[in-house]
Amino acid sequence: MSHNSFGHLFRFTTFGESHGLAIGCIVDGCPPRIALTEADIQGDLDRRRPGQSKFTTQRQEPDQVKILSGVFIEADGIQRTTGTPIGLLIENVDQRSKDYAAVAQAYRPGHADFTYDTKYGIRDPRGGGRSSARETAMRVAAGAIARKVIPDIRIRGALVQMGPHRIDRANWDWDEVNNNPFFCPDAKAAAFYADYLDGIRKNGSSIGAVIEVVAENVPAGWGAPIYGKLDSDLAAAMMSINAVKGVEIGAGFGAAELTGEDNADCMRAGNDGKPRFTSNNAGGILGGISTGQDVVVRFAVKPTSSILTPRETIDRDGKETEIFTKGRHDPCVGIRAVPVGEAMMAIVLADHMLRHRAQVG
Amino acid sequence: MSHNSFGHLFRFTTFGESHGLAIGCIVDGCPPRIALTEADIQGDLDRRRPGQSKFTTQRQEPDQVKILSGVFIEADGIQRTTGTPIGLLIENVDQRSKDYAAVAQAYRPGHADFTYDTKYGIRDPRGGGRSSARETAMRVAAGAIARKVIPDIRIRGALVQMGPHRIDRANWDWDEVNNNPFFCPDAKAAAFYADYLDGIRKNGSSIGAVIEVVAENVPAGWGAPIYGKLDSDLAAAMMSINAVKGVEIGAGFGAAELTGEDNADCMRAGNDGKPRFTSNNAGGILGGISTGQDVVVRFAVKPTSSILTPRETIDRDGKETEIFTKGRHDPCVGIRAVPVGEAMMAIVLADHMLRHRAQVG
Amino acid sequence: MSHNSFGHLFRFTTFGESHGLAIGCIVDGCPPRIALTEADIQGDLDRRRPGQSKFTTQRQEPDQVKILSGVFIEADGIQRTTGTPIGLLIENVDQRSKDYAAVAQAYRPGHADFTYDTKYGIRDPRGGGRSSARETAMRVAAGAIARKVIPDIRIRGALVQMGPHRIDRANWDWDEVNNNPFFCPDAKAAAFYADYLDGIRKNGSSIGAVIEVVAENVPAGWGAPIYGKLDSDLAAAMMSINAVKGVEIGAGFGAAELTGEDNADCMRAGNDGKPRFTSNNAGGILGGISTGQDVVVRFAVKPTSSILTPRETIDRDGKETEIFTKGRHDPCVGIRAVPVGEAMMAIVLADHMLRHRAQVG
Amino acid sequence: MSHNSFGHLFRFTTFGESHGLAIGCIVDGCPPRIALTEADIQGDLDRRRPGQSKFTTQRQEPDQVKILSGVFIEADGIQRTTGTPIGLLIENVDQRSKDYAAVAQAYRPGHADFTYDTKYGIRDPRGGGRSSARETAMRVAAGAIARKVIPDIRIRGALVQMGPHRIDRANWDWDEVNNNPFFCPDAKAAAFYADYLDGIRKNGSSIGAVIEVVAENVPAGWGAPIYGKLDSDLAAAMMSINAVKGVEIGAGFGAAELTGEDNADCMRAGNDGKPRFTSNNAGGILGGISTGQDVVVRFAVKPTSSILTPRETIDRDGKETEIFTKGRHDPCVGIRAVPVGEAMMAIVLADHMLRHRAQVG
Repeated sequence: MSHNSFGHLFRFTTFGESHGLAIGCIVDGCPPRIALTEADIQGDLDRRRPGQSKFTTQRQEPDQVKILSGVFIEADGIQRTTGTPIGLLIENVDQRSKDYAAVAQAYRPGHADFTYDTKYGIRDPRGGGRSSARETAMRVAAGAIARKVIPDIRIRGALVQMGPHRIDRANWDWDEVNNNPFFCPDAKAAAFYADYLDGIRKNGSSIGAVIEVVAENVPAGWGAPIYGKLDSDLAAAMMSINAVKGVEIGAGFGAAELTGEDNADCMRAGNDGKPRFTSNNAGGILGGISTGQDVVVRFAVKPTSSILTPRETIDRDGKETEIFTKGRHDPCVGIRAVPVGEAMMAIVLADHMLRHRAQVG
Repeated sequence: MSHNSFGHLFRFTTFGESHGLAIGCIVDGCPPRIALTEADIQGDLDRRRPGQSKFTTQRQEPDQVKILSGVFIEADGIQRTTGTPIGLLIENVDQRSKDYAAVAQAYRPGHADFTYDTKYGIRDPRGGGRSSARETAMRVAAGAIARKVIPDIRIRGALVQMGPHRIDRANWDWDEVNNNPFFCPDAKAAAFYADYLDGIRKNGSSIGAVIEVVAENVPAGWGAPIYGKLDSDLAAAMMSINAVKGVEIGAGFGAAELTGEDNADCMRAGNDGKPRFTSNNAGGILGGISTGQDVVVRFAVKPTSSILTPRETIDRDGKETEIFTKGRHDPCVGIRAVPVGEAMMAIVLADHMLRHRAQVG
Repeated sequence: MSHNSFGHLFRFTTFGESHGLAIGCIVDGCPPRIALTEADIQGDLDRRRPGQSKFTTQRQEPDQVKILSGVFIEADGIQRTTGTPIGLLIENVDQRSKDYAAVAQAYRPGHADFTYDTKYGIRDPRGGGRSSARETAMRVAAGAIARKVIPDIRIRGALVQMGPHRIDRANWDWDEVNNNPFFCPDAKAAAFYADYLDGIRKNGSSIGAVIEVVAENVPAGWGAPIYGKLDSDLAAAMMSINAVKGVEIGAGFGAAELTGEDNADCMRAGNDGKPRFTSNNAGGILGGISTGQDVVVRFAVKPTSSILTPRETIDRDGKETEIFTKGRHDPCVGIRAVPVGEAMMAIVLADHMLRHRAQVG
Repeated sequence: MSHNSFGHLFRFTTFGESHGLAIGCIVDGCPPRIALTEADIQGDLDRRRPGQSKFTTQRQEPDQVKILSGVFIEADGIQRTTGTPIGLLIENVDQRSKDYAAVAQAYRPGHADFTYDTKYGIRDPRGGGRSSARETAMRVAAGAIARKVIPDIRIRGALVQMGPHRIDRANWDWDEVNNNPFFCPDAKAAAFYADYLDGIRKNGSSIGAVIEVVAENVPAGWGAPIYGKLDSDLAAAMMSINAVKGVEIGAGFGAAELTGEDNADCMRAGNDGKPRFTSNNAGGILGGISTGQDVVVRFAVKPTSSILTPRETIDRDGKETEIFTKGRHDPCVGIRAVPVGEAMMAIVLADHMLRHRAQVG
């Protein structure tokens, strides 16, 4: 058991606080002889990196990853995994702890300050310590390696709702996702969000979001019944991301409103010998096992609790007070959760590929 | 790693198919010297048992549990746990396999028939084999033991939505839950559901539902950051229940629509020295750790895919055909998911109590 | 984590006390479509069963195993594993608890009475409860299934020392193992042991033994470096057997006396393209990974502590007293440890086959 | 499951090769608020460090450890653990890879070259890569933290046999252990070893050893029956150390030669209310649970296979050749295994303390 590891056969373990010397992780169980360089990882890290638009925190973290172990340059000049643990390190450079001095005593509502202090008896005010979203950089790094373990599978994420405003799914265009600072597949919605979020940012407020992650080309048969269900692991994966409060697969909560006739995805003979489904309410998973359709997960991200408006709270001594947050924060943390969600999807699928191969060959 | 175990320190492992000789489980890690009899478990099993109203499957499964190990009658005549594994067994009595003869070849849409066959290369048509909801009886049994590990915590579940029809939360009365066959806390909604579901049942159709489970008196400090988050484990737990397609904590997907000001639960000094929160959007969990407020989880259950209306499908040979299900099935499987959800909540909390005690003492 | 499970991908979990209703286990992770009947398991159980000669306990335990789940008779009439958990049960028939009434209060030296009571606060005198060697029946049952997962590997065990008397390895003949009640491969030593152990038995005394288990045809490449070493898992496996106090691989403790020149197993080109080793001090494992040579493990079993001669001890109240054991016990428990050691070897190897296949394919 | 992690509740995971940029580990599950500085760890690392006498490899590795996370300087100026993962890093400084150029193609007998290549399909000749004893530095670092988790327990190791030469246990003096370069508690034997090992070193040969590790003040009741046995975990821990071929507890292999009368450790009432044992053949463990006596483990270390005398071997193409090792190596690797064995003992005990506290409170 480990509270800081995720996955079973493809497994990674992270360490580090937002304001310590470095953050890092160990990726264990990666198959040998997969080509891997730091550049392969850096690309995904850069997508998550803050400070790239006015809509994300202005902290400057270059997030330059170093591979410390687990790779070897073979005779052909290509660096490949050796099958032994891959140590990854990102040194912290922007640790402006003074921003956090004010919050040392009072518990910030919506943050983990009170619960950490209650659990561990330690009040580490530096950027939320371990509960900072900074930890997710290592998820993205591990996810980049996971993608290389399952190279045929394409994993993409998108923001599909900001506050109460949902995208129009009829406008969905994956190419748009990289054309706006919101990872939004609907160009029209993205234009709206630009104004909408700017208003929220200027007010020192924040807003929630819903993210959707889709994995294509997942073969039928991955996953397992009961407690090893692919959807159970995806739910744990997404709910472990900071600020996530809900996870759904396929039709999700909408399935509660359906009749059996409407919900069941009918099957037809496909042209390639594989079955073709006439719908995908299942989100690509039946009985915990992949169907061969796209695996579709959505998760809800709450608004960051770091806002300029003072909120009522108490301090360590139980005395009532007020607090507001001056630090540099994301008006919509959901945005940067997109590459994190993709990474967790990649990690769950890589793990289940290995688990399936172990049992079934 | 085990695909059929759940929990870490309070851990149970199940076996058995709906139409085999028996189902059973091993509960491991239970503290010693907890008073435990079969009657303690039977009560919860009886709440889940089918055939109690016309709204659940008419299969007759007395679900009589036997404790095979891990208890000892001490000198005072009280039977207590010994700290060693508790073996539980329920013999199957109603295994009418013939009902399932028709489905042997064609894959039932919405069921796990196709995915199991693809994964394992075995087509076991008997009641869905391992993917039958029958397995949840063992969860309820393990959950009954978990409740005794955390006796101060009260865990109750309720059906809060059937199809598109939500209860009126203003009518919430926990006492009503046991007064209707739906575990519904809103008497008025329950009356409506009786007619509504009867119509669905008579049509041989089915409908989805949303279940809410609430745990009171959970101390602040249980859970862990990152991958050992209490909410991450709850998400995995609930999503592992048959037919569940979505899980949310506290405000859940609603949190995506909130601003930071509205979402953050403010803190005030309580009369008992403990903090008092002015709202509970967090659902009792911040940063993966309990706040001391009620832990609130909701999950969406899809309609059962066993319906009388024929649906298009294919058979093992890929040939197109149609199928409908004559067997005895639940028009709304969400109903019987209520005690299962309670059990999973109890198991997660008992596990985290032990995990917290291990690290923090 | 589970204190009653062993293995990772091929994993089994046991429950049950020697004097409860039944013992049982769940074998999880077994690949699908392996032919398996109760008879396949019963054969190994019968080799371990007590009461077959005057040299083992006279308790009568038919040890009739039932497969409760995880198998399915396919269209060809052959029963095969389905890939889901296999539940196994053996009902207890000979529970003569009265034999143990005398020992209820005093702690038997060399037994786990004192440590269990100290740990759990429960004094269950019935045959040692969970610490009885009866639990090993389930290891043998799980091991019989493990053998079917790695059908090309031949696993055989032998008693190579009884008390101070070692066999003459020049006389080693595997066929002899089944010709005497000691699983002894040296016919001459077996004849000596017959007299020697009879004397010990008549005195109500007991004696230790050393067991060797050999696995042939293990492919090179199984195992893993560092904490997943094949030898590390074998050491844990054998040391977990009741009464075992030492484990060694290949040259074992003898390796401490060797020079580097003598210890290193030289390699030559084999006729079949595979390397040939000129010796096997490594016991078939280098750096935690199999070499392709025979995997050779030995373990030391202490004498049973149940003897007729009174020994000094204390009771639950700390009062000094004496105790001797009238129950039916083995004069040399090492004998029945032979099939148990074979089973643990099979389980470790089956687990590592799956682990290797997962990572390397 | 992880091949590079050890422990369950006190758990560490290592990465790094002998000739990469750095080695490191993550210690997870450490209780919060334990005073911890780099100096606490450095002391143990220095005891293991090579190059301190002519009897260990002349590689210069300062082994300067950095704590990257998991600690916080509290208001009283004392740095303490926070309960979150502790990241440790040692940068490699002496990576003279050229020494290893010659061995790139041929497999060194007794080393893991052949098995790694067979498993992973990668031939990394740099100092044995992951299988180098360099990894043990991280065990010692993690062990130093484990010691602080169980401060009342004293753990000491000693070399008790070099080649065929055993110490005289009558001369045992723990204070002598730090007076000679062999960690030998018998001054007379140490003097003999100095000459003996010098001869072996000058011949470019090597020799095996036996190490004993003793833990004092372990409370009765730690450990668990069956597969969570304290001795089973100790066996896995010690057998996972490089070059170890055998492990024994208490009387160990000697127990095989004893009668039940001689082996059973009798109990008497102690002056302090606790029982007193009249002997310790059990090595402090009965039924997998600590008795309160000293926990005593011994393990056998084979001679290093890096020797100057050419040995027959094959290369990657299967061609027969010869090889000898010019690198800087230990004539008796057993010596430096002493602090490693102590560390593994500390880790197993810290883990079991937490496991016991979890279940029993």
